[in-house]
Amino acid sequence: MLDELSHIGRDPATNGYIRDAWSVSDLELREWFRGEAARRGLDLREDRNGNLWAWWGDPSRAPGVATGSHLDSVRQGGAYDGPLGVVSAFAALDVLKNRDFRPGRPLGVACFTDEEGARFGVPCVGSRLLTGVLTPERALALTDDDGDTLADVLTRAGRSPRALGRDDETLGHVAVFVELHVEQGRGLVDLGRPVGVASAIRPHGRWRFDFRGQANHAGTTRLEDRDDPMLPFARMVLAARESAAKHGIVATVGRTRVSPGNANAVPGLVSAWLDARGAREEDVRAAVAELGDLAEGARVSEESWTPVVDFDVTLRDRVAAVAGSEEEPSPVLPTGAGHDAGILASAGVPSAMLFVRNPTGVSHSPAEHAERADCEAGVVALASVLEDLCR
Amino acid sequence: MLDELSHIGRDPATNGYIRDAWSVSDLELREWFRGEAARRGLDLREDRNGNLWAWWGDPSRAPGVATGSHLDSVRQGGAYDGPLGVVSAFAALDVLKNRDFRPGRPLGVACFTDEEGARFGVPCVGSRLLTGVLTPERALALTDDDGDTLADVLTRAGRSPRALGRDDETLGHVAVFVELHVEQGRGLVDLGRPVGVASAIRPHGRWRFDFRGQANHAGTTRLEDRDDPMLPFARMVLAARESAAKHGIVATVGRTRVSPGNANAVPGLVSAWLDARGAREEDVRAAVAELGDLAEGARVSEESWTPVVDFDVTLRDRVAAVAGSEEEPSPVLPTGAGHDAGILASAGVPSAMLFVRNPTGVSHSPAEHAERADCEAGVVALASVLEDLCR
Repeated sequence: MLDELSHIGRDPATNGYIRDAWSVSDLELREWFRGEAARRGLDLREDRNGNLWAWWGDPSRAPGVATGSHLDSVRQGGAYDGPLGVVSAFAALDVLKNRDFRPGRPLGVACFTDEEGARFGVPCVGSRLLTGVLTPERALALTDDDGDTLADVLTRAGRSPRALGRDDETLGHVAVFVELHVEQGRGLVDLGRPVGVASAIRPHGRWRFDFRGQANHAGTTRLEDRDDPMLPFARMVLAARESAAKHGIVATVGRTRVSPGNANAVPGLVSAWLDARGAREEDVRAAVAELGDLAEGARVSEESWTPVVDFDVTLRDRVAAVAGSEEEPSPVLPTGAGHDAGILASAGVPSAMLFVRNPTGVSHSPAEHAERADCEAGVVALASVLEDLCR
Repeated sequence: MLDELSHIGRDPATNGYIRDAWSVSDLELREWFRGEAARRGLDLREDRNGNLWAWWGDPSRAPGVATGSHLDSVRQGGAYDGPLGVVSAFAALDVLKNRDFRPGRPLGVACFTDEEGARFGVPCVGSRLLTGVLTPERALALTDDDGDTLADVLTRAGRSPRALGRDDETLGHVAVFVELHVEQGRGLVDLGRPVGVASAIRPHGRWRFDFRGQANHAGTTRLEDRDDPMLPFARMVLAARESAAKHGIVATVGRTRVSPGNANAVPGLVSAWLDARGAREEDVRAAVAELGDLAEGARVSEESWTPVVDFDVTLRDRVAAVAGSEEEPSPVLPTGAGHDAGILASAGVPSAMLFVRNPTGVSHSPAEHAERADCEAGVVALASVLEDLCR
């Protein structure tokens, strides 16, 4: 099934994917999801926040077990981050149907909207809105690089911006959520295992630093007359690495905006997004506070913050036992990446995650990969977990 | 006349101008130029490289005196850089007509295409093509931020890319060129004079630094496993300032491109444009060489280089005497900014420049300004210079 999606949003120059939320590529991926649901006779629902649900059985009569992930991508991302979880969910249902399994409660496949935040800067918008962590007011005012708000974009896609917000009806359908995802590090490679289970999502956040200066001519403005925001920005980039090493966390500046962006002018504004994550919240907080102090005169705003998510231990151990075996359960390991399963878990929905081995550990890059045999092992493990949870 | 242009390409949020070459705004400005030429009964010609010429008299019979500047803008630029020279050229012709002056040789108003290089990265494209400094092959392959080549853009604008190249016929029309321009520093403010004359254009160039790394996940990639190009880029920004101070030049990084530009991914490529200028070529070259050595592993390519341009001294002194008076000629001062007049001068066309006082010295910014009285003094000085040269 992944092959069917391989052309959508692919940049032929890099083989990376551009699948921004609500873009033409995203709409095409959503249509593909609807088609897969219809082909299996599943009942398709789009919730108030644009998340898609394909149910086997009626979750309004009794809450069910849902599995899935997302179809959008970071810019120039790989083929697996997101789609592997959705494709594996449909494939696991096929395995169960082939086994003539009859679920004891409803079983659903989910596709969350805008998990990566590539377009509007805030990740997990669909699951954050669903659970009420993100308010509709804040979400609707988010803007993309063209200056369009999420409200504009939803309206153009035929959705009602007024529908957005915490959705207790949809949440009430989900008794348990399981997300399968390609691993984004080398944990399983080091352990020599194809499939693992998540213990926790490390605390992580995103901060925007705005450095303001005075735009001026690059040739005629003396060095001593300049107020060039590129310099404090560059110092911040270097300080972020030092501070991360000191506090034992990771910190990244992967997105910047230089205004006006003329080669022959001192810029007037440099904006930079800092992504920081670590095992302990206090370490992340300390590093970011240190950078805020160092970044002379910059305006620092927190765009998102996700506290540590410890997945339900009982569920986790049950999933590990079923995905592996009683004698040799699947290995349990933490991750530094955020996921919709983490948002649901924080909101009180019992949730678990399965990881599929990534031979290079590279992710958010066209080089992201998983071997076919490992993907198949992931589907089999997921099917067994769903069978166990739906008995 | 400047007021008539004030709405074209203005960003209402900043009052800065976006007037990229061959954009809708640029086409509107070119139409305005055609209208002004027609209203005065001038003979309009567009040369092979898209530069516009409005002649009073026929320059194919005897070469004439041309004046003018450009209408395109840096992004978020001011209202004066470029348009003041074109508007003042038309206004100076009006002054001469009111004086019932009959030029002894043809008199033309010029509008050069893509002086700023905001769209394709190379400045003075129109005059460089005209004089053969830039080859059509290189020009046509230049790409804008959307990935469109100059060839694509010209074709869409109804121009023939095959026409581009050194144009001896057009060059043969121009015996002398005079460009009026808003000053881009505080030289005239310090001297207390409204109008000045250029002695030289300082040597200047533009270099592109490509820092390559490995795109990867911002949350799951350990610091020690990263190859993050943002770090050597930041070191280069800081080193550029130090190196500029050490060699007595100015150096600016005003434009960058971070790919893929995800907040949650280590970037795979950071490109940065270095603009460096100084009084002496060897100082600029030394600073750039030093940075190239420092920028570990970066690919450095020279996008443009303009050696020092010393304007013709006889012409300069004549212009200064006429623009001011025999007793008190206009002050003569160098500039760090590149201009089409500099390109023509390098190609052997006797050329001169007039500067109009800029009270703040700020340019390439919406804050760029010139007082109305100073603009009028500029027009009067230009008219006198043209009258003298056309006698």
